[in-house]
Amino acid sequence: MTISLNATHDPQLRSWVESANIAGTDFPIQNLPFAVFRTQGTQEAARCGVGIGDEILDISACLQLFTGDARQAADACAESTLNALMALGNQAASALRGALSRLLAAGNEEHRAVLSSALIPMSNAELLLPVKIAGYTDFFASIHHATNAGRLFRPDAPLLPNYKYVPVGYNGRANSIRVSGDRVQRPWGQLKAADAPAPVFAPAKRLDYEVELGMYIGTSSRDGEPVSVANAWDHIFGFSLLNDWSARDVQSWEYQPLGPFLAKSFATSVSPWVVTAEALAPFRVAVLTRAEGDPAPLPHLLDAADQSSGALNIRIDATLRTAQMRENDAPAHTLSRSNTELLYWSFAQMVAHHSSNGSAIDTGDLMGSGTVSGASQDALGSLLEITRGGAEPMLLSATGEQRTFLEDGDEVIFRGRCERDGHVPIGFGICTGTLLPAHKPS
Amino acid sequence: MTISLNATHDPQLRSWVESANIAGTDFPIQNLPFAVFRTQGTQEAARCGVGIGDEILDISACLQLFTGDARQAADACAESTLNALMALGNQAASALRGALSRLLAAGNEEHRAVLSSALIPMSNAELLLPVKIAGYTDFFASIHHATNAGRLFRPDAPLLPNYKYVPVGYNGRANSIRVSGDRVQRPWGQLKAADAPAPVFAPAKRLDYEVELGMYIGTSSRDGEPVSVANAWDHIFGFSLLNDWSARDVQSWEYQPLGPFLAKSFATSVSPWVVTAEALAPFRVAVLTRAEGDPAPLPHLLDAADQSSGALNIRIDATLRTAQMRENDAPAHTLSRSNTELLYWSFAQMVAHHSSNGSAIDTGDLMGSGTVSGASQDALGSLLEITRGGAEPMLLSATGEQRTFLEDGDEVIFRGRCERDGHVPIGFGICTGTLLPAHKPS
Repeated sequence: MTISLNATHDPQLRSWVESANIAGTDFPIQNLPFAVFRTQGTQEAARCGVGIGDEILDISACLQLFTGDARQAADACAESTLNALMALGNQAASALRGALSRLLAAGNEEHRAVLSSALIPMSNAELLLPVKIAGYTDFFASIHHATNAGRLFRPDAPLLPNYKYVPVGYNGRANSIRVSGDRVQRPWGQLKAADAPAPVFAPAKRLDYEVELGMYIGTSSRDGEPVSVANAWDHIFGFSLLNDWSARDVQSWEYQPLGPFLAKSFATSVSPWVVTAEALAPFRVAVLTRAEGDPAPLPHLLDAADQSSGALNIRIDATLRTAQMRENDAPAHTLSRSNTELLYWSFAQMVAHHSSNGSAIDTGDLMGSGTVSGASQDALGSLLEITRGGAEPMLLSATGEQRTFLEDGDEVIFRGRCERDGHVPIGFGICTGTLLPAHKPS
Repeated sequence: MTISLNATHDPQLRSWVESANIAGTDFPIQNLPFAVFRTQGTQEAARCGVGIGDEILDISACLQLFTGDARQAADACAESTLNALMALGNQAASALRGALSRLLAAGNEEHRAVLSSALIPMSNAELLLPVKIAGYTDFFASIHHATNAGRLFRPDAPLLPNYKYVPVGYNGRANSIRVSGDRVQRPWGQLKAADAPAPVFAPAKRLDYEVELGMYIGTSSRDGEPVSVANAWDHIFGFSLLNDWSARDVQSWEYQPLGPFLAKSFATSVSPWVVTAEALAPFRVAVLTRAEGDPAPLPHLLDAADQSSGALNIRIDATLRTAQMRENDAPAHTLSRSNTELLYWSFAQMVAHHSSNGSAIDTGDLMGSGTVSGASQDALGSLLEITRGGAEPMLLSATGEQRTFLEDGDEVIFRGRCERDGHVPIGFGICTGTLLPAHKPS
C-alpha cells in the first residue's frame, strides 16, 4: 500500500470552471467526486456525474471525449447508481478522473464547448442515493465514543476487553440508508424506564444522531480469500458522510444480547457525493498511536504502511438548526467538530477484519466508521455524549432553547472537509436530515 | 387474519403425477412449493418451478395454460429468482397454485400432454438460491434456546429481562445466504480462551449449526406504516429451512456490545424449496401458552386470532453424517427433532415487531426464527445446547466417534415436515451443508 500522488492532486491546478477555484469550495478540480443525479423537477433517467465547483458534469453527455479505461468508466456512468463504475476497480475511475483533470484544467480550451454543454448547476439538480447498498456494516472505531457511550450503558465496564483487539462492528439494515435530505421520522419503540416494571410502546423520546464517515466497497472479494490490510485500499472506492440516527431509549432496552436493531433501522442518512479514495490520498495520515500498555493489533490486522498512513484527516462539523432558528433566521448551533484521524482502527483494518473469517465483501457494501468522537468536549459526535445521556441539557445560545435529545423539526447538518498544508482543501458537501414527527398510531 | 382452507388443501386430492401420491413424499399436490432451477450440467437460464412428487414443473414451459392472476404469476416465473412472483402478492401465487391443483389433479387429462412435457425430474435439476435476499434478519424466538444458550454465555442471567417483551432479533449479513449444498467453510477468527491473556487468530474450533425456519417477505410495506400482527400474513410469502452456521468461539469474544458478526457471516444455508404460507395453513396451531407469571405481549404485538392460530406445526429433524459414516455407509446420527410450534413468538409478531418502529420490510427479506429448540433433551437445535458448550461430548453410536463441535467433512442435514390428522403431510425437502476445512493462510 503506497500512496502515490498524481497529476490530479497537483495543488497548482485550476479549472476553467471558475466556481471550482473559489476559496472554500468543496469541489475544486482536485476533488472530482461522483454522485447520481437528475435535473430537478423532471423524470429524467438518473445517471452518474462528477462535481466541479458548483456544477455537475454529466459524463454521459460527453462520452466521446474519453478513451480506454476512462471510456469504460464513463460508459458505466450511464447507470442510475455508481455500482457499475465501482465494480470496474479503482484504476478505471482513476483514469476517468485523470482525463477530467486534464479536460477541465484552466487553459485547456480544446473541448470546452462540449464539456460546458454537459455541465448542470448543482442548484438545478436532484441528488439521489448514489449507491445501491449491498450490505451495510457499522463499526465502532472511535475509542473515545466507545468509552463515552459505554460508560452510559455499562458504567462498570465502559470499554469491553475485546475493544483493543477486535474492530467491533455489526450488520446494519441496508434499507435504512437514504440520501441527505430524505425522510427521517421519529420511530416508535419499546421504552422502559429504569424504575418501571414493564416497557411501554410509544414514540422514542431520546432521539439522537451519530457523526460518521461511510466507506463504499468497489471491487468484491471472494469467499475464502480474505483481504489483507495491505490490499484493502484496492477494494475501497470512496467515502461519504453518514448520520446513523439512533433512538437511545429503544436501543438500551432492545440491544441485549444481539445488538442494536430497531433503534437504528429506521433511518441512516448519507451525503450524496462519494469522494474517491484517490482524491483523499493527500490527506492520509498515521493511525492514532496506541496508548502505552495497549496491545498491538494481531498480525493479520497489522501493516506498517497502514500504521504510518492509513488514517484519514477529515474534519466533520455537526450543526443543529431548530424550527425556531429557522423562523428567527438565527444561526445554526455548532454541535461538534471531530476528525476521523482519531479513530482507533483504520479503514483498511475494518476491511481486513470484515473479510478475515473468509466471507466476501461486495461491490456496494457500505461500512460506517461508527461515531467519530474526539477526546475534547467540543468533539463529541452524538447527543448521548454531549448531554451525558440526557443528564446535562445543552443550551442553544442563539435562541435560548435547550436540548437533551432531538425534537421534531430539528435539522442536523454534517459538513466534511480535508485541509493540509501544501494541498488544496477538498470537501464532502453536506449530509442533512430534518426530524419528522412520529407516525400516527394505526 | 382468518385461515381459510381452499380446494388446494383437499385431503382427497391426488395427482396424475404418480410420485406425488406416494406416502412420505414431501411434495404431494397439496404442497406445490416454489424453487428456482435449471437442468443440471447446463447453462440454461434459471427460472422458477413448482415441485410435484419427484418432478419440477417448469411454469415457463406451459404459460399458455394460465389466465388472469394465475397468468400474471406464471409470467413472473420466467425470472431467475422468486422475487417478482413474491412482489405480486399472495393472491397471485394462490391463483397459480389453485390452477396447478386443478391441472395436476388425478383424472384431469385435458392438458396432461403439455404439462408432462414441462416436467423435469428433480434428480436432473440444479436447484439455486430461490430468492435474491433483500435484508436478512435473524430472530431468537425459541425461549428454550434463549435460555439454554444464555446460560452458557451468561450463567448469571440466562434469559434477559427484555426477552418476554421484545421478539429479539438482529440484522444478519445478506450475502451469507446460500442454497443447500453450497459451500460452507470453517471460518478463521479471533479466539480467546477464558484463561488466556490475549486472543489468537486461527480457524474456529467450536463450529456449530442452528436449526431454524426462514420466512420470506412477499409484498413490501412502506416507511411510516407498520404492519399489524393481524395483517402480517399478507406480507409472508413462504418458508424454507435455514441453517445458521455459527462459530461459537468467535462469537463469545466478538459479540459484546453490538452482537454477533463474523461468527455468523461466513455462511447461512437455506433449503431450495419455498413452501407457501397458503400450503402451511392446515398446520397453523395456537401460539405457545405463556407460563404463569409471564407478561402478556404489549398491545401492538397481541392479536387474538394470532394467539389461537399463528404458530406453525413444523417438525424439523437434524442429522449428522460424518466422513467416517460416509466411508462405512453407516446411518446418519440423529441430532434433534424439534418443532416450530414451540416458539415463544409467532411469525406475525416478528413481522409486526420488525416494522413497528416505522421502517419498511421489503420483498425478498429473509427472517430467521432463531434456533428452534424444545424443552426435551432430544429437541435441542444446536451442538452448543446438546453438548452444553462442549462440556459433554456426544457419542455417535454408529461409528463410535465423538463430537463436541463439528469437524471438517461433517455434513449437517435438516428435514422439515408437517403432519396433522385429517391432512396430507407436506415437507420442505432438505437443507444440507458439508463443512470444508478452513482456507489456507495467505
